[in-house]
Amino acid sequence: MDNKGLLMINTGNGKGKTTSALGLALRSLGHQLPVCMIQFIKGSWDYGELKSSERFKDILDYFVVGHGFTWKTDNIEEDKKAARDGWELAKSVISEAKHHLIILDELTYALNYGMIDITEAVFVFKHKPEDMHIMITGRNAPSEIIEIADLVTEMKEIRHPYKSGIEAQKGIEW
Amino acid sequence: MDNKGLLMINTGNGKGKTTSALGLALRSLGHQLPVCMIQFIKGSWDYGELKSSERFKDILDYFVVGHGFTWKTDNIEEDKKAARDGWELAKSVISEAKHHLIILDELTYALNYGMIDITEAVFVFKHKPEDMHIMITGRNAPSEIIEIADLVTEMKEIRHPYKSGIEAQKGIEW
Repeated sequence: MDNKGLLMINTGNGKGKTTSALGLALRSLGHQLPVCMIQFIKGSWDYGELKSSERFKDILDYFVVGHGFTWKTDNIEEDKKAARDGWELAKSVISEAKHHLIILDELTYALNYGMIDITEAVFVFKHKPEDMHIMITGRNAPSEIIEIADLVTEMKEIRHPYKSGIEAQKGIEW
Repeated sequence: MDNKGLLMINTGNGKGKTTSALGLALRSLGHQLPVCMIQFIKGSWDYGELKSSERFKDILDYFVVGHGFTWKTDNIEEDKKAARDGWELAKSVISEAKHHLIILDELTYALNYGMIDITEAVFVFKHKPEDMHIMITGRNAPSEIIEIADLVTEMKEIRHPYKSGIEAQKGIEW
């Protein structure tokens, strides 16, 4: 069981799924272990996170494949293509086995919308390199992926400022 | 409601409370907004996180006030003193109003063990500088603090690798 890589999921309707993955990346980066982040929805990492990640560009590979949170009928083919391109990229990065941690940010949406085949995804995760950690984030993680995961954390919203009418805050929400 | 600072809590028995706070710090730091982190239990930030945080030493103030996860009878007076010193530091940093975000990491333990007076804590948080964000982390956040918070997230463990006997992983768990 030495140095076994974990399949991890951050799911739930609360804050902190992506942010916690970012913190996890920092742990690896601090050890000088390379990290790859693939963001399936544009905008889930904010400007501040992007600027911060520049301080790690020597060992952090960062890709945005999504087109933003649209899911509008007129963009569906484009969204599907982006999700599939992102998945091809993810598979190739996983098989290269160069990274200590791969973050597939907001992957659950593409799985839930049937843009990525879930059976193939399960196969890929089950056969990932032994010592590689993979973190998947997003709401409503599919049960097929939860089933094979080593660590699943549900971020549950107990109280949210939007509900009391406070606007998004610079450096906190964006 | 412009630029109102939030009182935030990450609680629950799952992973990601501190890690998510660290991610939140990155958002602020990327905006060049100063952050102060006070760690009430030594070891809740790991070596990797410490090394990573060095890349931000120009705008990140970092303090460790706790003595580790002991709570042993022979150390109780020392632990109490550490918690109280940390709380005095926190109050002074809050009143200085120099930081965009202050993280009080694992503060809940000191509150739950009665090392810090909860009535005073509620008063301090209620009267924090208007545009300052404060993030409190730790299990079993007291209801008095939850009551006045703007955002409370419960990190809930659904599946944990320790339960299937996997050891802590370098760069992930420590």
